[in-house]
Amino acid sequence: MKKGFLLAPGPTPVPERVLLAMAQPMIHHRTPQFSDIFAEAKEGLKYLFQTKEDVLILASSGTGAMEGSISNLLSPGDEVIVINGGKFGERWGKISDAYGLKVHWINVEWGKAVDPDEVRKVLDANPQVKAVMVQASETSTTVAHPVKELAALTKIRQDCLLIVDGITAVGVFPVPMDEWGIDVLLSGSQKAFMLPPGLAFAALSEKAWKFTETAKCRRFYFDFKKERKNLANNTTAYTPAVSLIIGLREVLAMVKEEGIERIYARNERLAGATKAAMEAIGLKLLAPGNPSNAATGVYVPEGVDGGKLVKYLRDTMGVTIAGGQDHLKGKIFRISHMGYVDTFDIVVAISAVEMALSKFGYSLEFGKGANAAQAILLEGYE
Amino acid sequence: MKKGFLLAPGPTPVPERVLLAMAQPMIHHRTPQFSDIFAEAKEGLKYLFQTKEDVLILASSGTGAMEGSISNLLSPGDEVIVINGGKFGERWGKISDAYGLKVHWINVEWGKAVDPDEVRKVLDANPQVKAVMVQASETSTTVAHPVKELAALTKIRQDCLLIVDGITAVGVFPVPMDEWGIDVLLSGSQKAFMLPPGLAFAALSEKAWKFTETAKCRRFYFDFKKERKNLANNTTAYTPAVSLIIGLREVLAMVKEEGIERIYARNERLAGATKAAMEAIGLKLLAPGNPSNAATGVYVPEGVDGGKLVKYLRDTMGVTIAGGQDHLKGKIFRISHMGYVDTFDIVVAISAVEMALSKFGYSLEFGKGANAAQAILLEGYE
Repeated sequence: MKKGFLLAPGPTPVPERVLLAMAQPMIHHRTPQFSDIFAEAKEGLKYLFQTKEDVLILASSGTGAMEGSISNLLSPGDEVIVINGGKFGERWGKISDAYGLKVHWINVEWGKAVDPDEVRKVLDANPQVKAVMVQASETSTTVAHPVKELAALTKIRQDCLLIVDGITAVGVFPVPMDEWGIDVLLSGSQKAFMLPPGLAFAALSEKAWKFTETAKCRRFYFDFKKERKNLANNTTAYTPAVSLIIGLREVLAMVKEEGIERIYARNERLAGATKAAMEAIGLKLLAPGNPSNAATGVYVPEGVDGGKLVKYLRDTMGVTIAGGQDHLKGKIFRISHMGYVDTFDIVVAISAVEMALSKFGYSLEFGKGANAAQAILLEGYE
Repeated sequence: MKKGFLLAPGPTPVPERVLLAMAQPMIHHRTPQFSDIFAEAKEGLKYLFQTKEDVLILASSGTGAMEGSISNLLSPGDEVIVINGGKFGERWGKISDAYGLKVHWINVEWGKAVDPDEVRKVLDANPQVKAVMVQASETSTTVAHPVKELAALTKIRQDCLLIVDGITAVGVFPVPMDEWGIDVLLSGSQKAFMLPPGLAFAALSEKAWKFTETAKCRRFYFDFKKERKNLANNTTAYTPAVSLIIGLREVLAMVKEEGIERIYARNERLAGATKAAMEAIGLKLLAPGNPSNAATGVYVPEGVDGGKLVKYLRDTMGVTIAGGQDHLKGKIFRISHMGYVDTFDIVVAISAVEMALSKFGYSLEFGKGANAAQAILLEGYE
């Protein structure tokens, strides 16, 4: 017997009541029964996105929503700014390249957030830029970029959009789309949404919808205007991922029950406890200055192979966390706080990391991590 | 209490053991545990597609695979032949338009199959045509197009592909990709695959893979070359729809247990029984000459509103069948035979249609449908 714990930054654990909701007999998607479910999900999404705009529901991974945000809003030859501080920032640039856009790259050291002043300078020097693309939470580096400050730059420019990948941000920490003036905010089902992968979401500001009128990139499956028209009738342009949307309705009911502010606070508390514990056992954080509450990135101590550590945690202890990607491979590990993760999942993660590190020869005092974390975790209880 | 029966041509019922497999706790997709599941699914797909080629697994509805088949193989300006004998044939043309291809339309009356001779003539007159696009089973009209004969035309032409939408054909009746020389065969999860919607599949011939080397359509999410590279490592380019792939593995195990020949025979028997029953109660078939075993289309008798009939069956009797689309709206109904549908589902469908028609004033003798169907259905038992 070995119990499993899923603490990687997506897919995240799916609550039991959501698994059961999705295990009900299949229903047809062009029925009042499904339309009612869809309508509920549609409204719940607005609450989670903190917007009055429509939130489109797509059957794809999050990358599909990233592609759609480009192909529906821009035209080949358009110039864009891509903030590249990790694997997903880089992806904005790759999609832009694929669609024939001209990319102004702003490269940011992995583990750091972009400096809004630098973005302002590039924008001032290139007033023809049509969009700035960024991650609210760059999952590969556990960094939160300063979206509010970036939105302040784009919202005063009539012809420039702020396109935000909120895949590990929406439902994790506040990214109030309307209040901040974000033009495109997108997310995916397998993160804070506590669902299996397979759904992506995208919300557009009025300013962004105007861009769809002139965008000339070729597209078919990811057609935001067509989706908006269908959304009004509580359906999608093509066959929706029925079971996932049934799960979505259930998840959004849970979100409403808990309240978004409590969820943000929980994620912050779990992230805070994890960081305190990791520092207490002498480890260095990957993003000390501007961490995302989605996940905490931690440097593996010298002499320990991070790849083997993560594998040992998963295969021997049953605790799945994530390693590093690209040049951080083997050098960091990441513990997720998103979605259906609570106090004692974090207690488990800290304890498992301590025990595995000890097994790999790192010298530490057992209980020090728990000691640092527990005071913070206790704040979650009245 | 009212038991539900799902007999529409997609989504189709999901077997209980598949629902339960998908309701297991979420697992991470970059783990040996998931890779093993993926590897099994990958091999099982080859059996169902009757091919030695890789079958790509995409997180999207079937339309995504249709788009990918165009964007990965062709370039703007390329000329193609679209066989348009229903809603899905029309979709091939719409996607081709969106990607700047030049379409030679071959329009076919709804309910009829294309004449291969007509295709040959258009091909002979336009040797520059790069692809012929067709549905093996046109779901909107319950017609099976003569794919084998079309493949005979394209396989002798070095520079012309046959692209086949097998969404309601693969796993329903024989479409042996390699044997017939089909260049692209695609399908979707919510039909014969007995899964919820959200996965699409595409297999390419060696000849088709060569086309991917020169295709210039812009694309990113649906990138077949990238998917093939990832497939070799038992993963996908972007986050896979984990729960659906776990279900897929289960479904493919069921398919192997039953054997593909038995499945084809079952579908044929169910379709045959349905047709016999409908004719026995005096109704006219939509596609008498070239029916697909995926679903049987039947004209609603004069004086009966087909929309109301289908609604009554669904909302009052709990039996979900499909109505007609576009100009056939209200004029036909369709009973599906695909996937997790067996003898007594068809007995229920026939009985329900008889009872509902009687309620709507159509004169018939109860039991006549059953009488015609039972002899055929009994052939399924030793």
